[in-house]
Amino acid sequence: MRVAVLGVGLVGGSIGLAARARAGAEVCGYDTDPAALRTALRLGAIDEQAPDIATAVAGAQAVFAAAPVGALAQTVLDALAHAGPDCVVSDVGSTALALSDASSQGSGGRVAIDFRSDPRFVGGHPLAGAETAGAAHAREDLFEDADWYLIRDPSTDPALYERLRGLIERFGAHPTAIDADTHDRLMASVSHLPHVLANVLAAQAATAFERERFQAGAGPSLSDAIRVAGANTAIWTDIYLANRDALIAAIDDATRRLADVRAALIDGNAGALAAWNESARAARGALLGEHPPSLPGDPANLPASDA
Amino acid sequence: MRVAVLGVGLVGGSIGLAARARAGAEVCGYDTDPAALRTALRLGAIDEQAPDIATAVAGAQAVFAAAPVGALAQTVLDALAHAGPDCVVSDVGSTALALSDASSQGSGGRVAIDFRSDPRFVGGHPLAGAETAGAAHAREDLFEDADWYLIRDPSTDPALYERLRGLIERFGAHPTAIDADTHDRLMASVSHLPHVLANVLAAQAATAFERERFQAGAGPSLSDAIRVAGANTAIWTDIYLANRDALIAAIDDATRRLADVRAALIDGNAGALAAWNESARAARGALLGEHPPSLPGDPANLPASDA
Repeated sequence: MRVAVLGVGLVGGSIGLAARARAGAEVCGYDTDPAALRTALRLGAIDEQAPDIATAVAGAQAVFAAAPVGALAQTVLDALAHAGPDCVVSDVGSTALALSDASSQGSGGRVAIDFRSDPRFVGGHPLAGAETAGAAHAREDLFEDADWYLIRDPSTDPALYERLRGLIERFGAHPTAIDADTHDRLMASVSHLPHVLANVLAAQAATAFERERFQAGAGPSLSDAIRVAGANTAIWTDIYLANRDALIAAIDDATRRLADVRAALIDGNAGALAAWNESARAARGALLGEHPPSLPGDPANLPASDA
Repeated sequence: MRVAVLGVGLVGGSIGLAARARAGAEVCGYDTDPAALRTALRLGAIDEQAPDIATAVAGAQAVFAAAPVGALAQTVLDALAHAGPDCVVSDVGSTALALSDASSQGSGGRVAIDFRSDPRFVGGHPLAGAETAGAAHAREDLFEDADWYLIRDPSTDPALYERLRGLIERFGAHPTAIDADTHDRLMASVSHLPHVLANVLAAQAATAFERERFQAGAGPSLSDAIRVAGANTAIWTDIYLANRDALIAAIDDATRRLADVRAALIDGNAGALAAWNESARAARGALLGEHPPSLPGDPANLPASDA
């Protein structure tokens, strides 16, 4: 199979590595940054580099658009314009994709770009990332065990969808069909709100140290909680605005939950706090695919803390 | 030097290992759980086990109370009752320590136990933890580079304080003098609020998956954000109530910050969101001791995301 990867950063580079090593594909790469392309070639993430999108997608059976969010819509449009009829075109950031012109309008308003009417297009979104961006950090196993959402529309060609699904499975990921609205609401909860709260935590903790005139520092729980704070401003401003309705709903939900904890604290209600903590423990287990401890209170099964 | 460790779980066991390996101390351990004591002995975290606190602290020059929060106050009182005049007595959870009877009152009310009048007592709080609790997971390097707060009161014996400070430095940690109120306010920001928000995130994400009738799963940013969700309920109910005034103030601060983000989203104000994200990025850098990227926009320097 011939695969084209448009944008060879961390995710695109990792797709190239996985496609070559795990699916025996021949991979052609394109990037607006020649240095990234050279790195991808040197690391074996691509077999060859193309001078433009038309050349990259010529003869490809599958195309992955992995450009930054702001450039993703145009990259997909260009790929669809040049790809043949027997080629599936996907991307890696579909939350913001369907809405990706929102930020260039400066208003957060939705501008419909109707990829979905093209039977060759399947929006994709791997839930995978790493501490470091860039082709140099690409890994063949980046998608191992990761959920990879695929937005299947009624117009999608079933055979092309199947080809993409099979490819992603060979990357080691779990392809999961989802509709666009459900996807955007879930992303607000599992990705966008966590980024917002990381920002809130980082800002309030830094302010607290300043107020106490104490040197700033973070223990393990805060370090983990703020890992994604202040992520790439251009990308995340786009994402927040593109998904703002769902994100506002998630913020309102979080605010209500904080008000409930606050009330339990004001009342000194140990029972309510304990029940709330236990239900968070169950939720954590469900989200991380953990089983509850076999012996209640078994310390080896307790989640971490830095009390 | 002879050191007594009262409670040989993850933190107590790691103190024993560090005291033996890094400070050449002879370590005597005590624990209400005989199995934990046997494990600590087997792993070399202690030289010998004592049948009770009086025996453990006899002849010790330094005592670390590392029992669970709910038992910490009584452990310190027992240690002070039996330790000699030339012995510094410290603990590892001083946020909740001075207030530790709060939860046993079931009301969150403060009950002053005046350790602070004893010149041998120095409240301590290492900002270190791990995924797994229990003596079996103790590590000699658990405190390497960790901040270790020491609450120095006017009544504290300067020579005993110095002895403790030197010992903690040899563990590889950074001993930092702090007063009790400042400590409690900082802990609300750097530890207790992160735990509260982890619980909130876990609960709202699990609810979102249920509402969408979708199988629960977490990408990298959510996984990190909920790592400490649902931490040991007994311990954390005590901690939340013991420090509730400072925690309520931190929750109110977080709620105000969420309202600000919400307003920027409603207005579609890309500039305000970008500025907010940049200031979170600076805060993250200050908290984690990172320098800003040398080249703005250098992808290798960008914090992680899972967009």
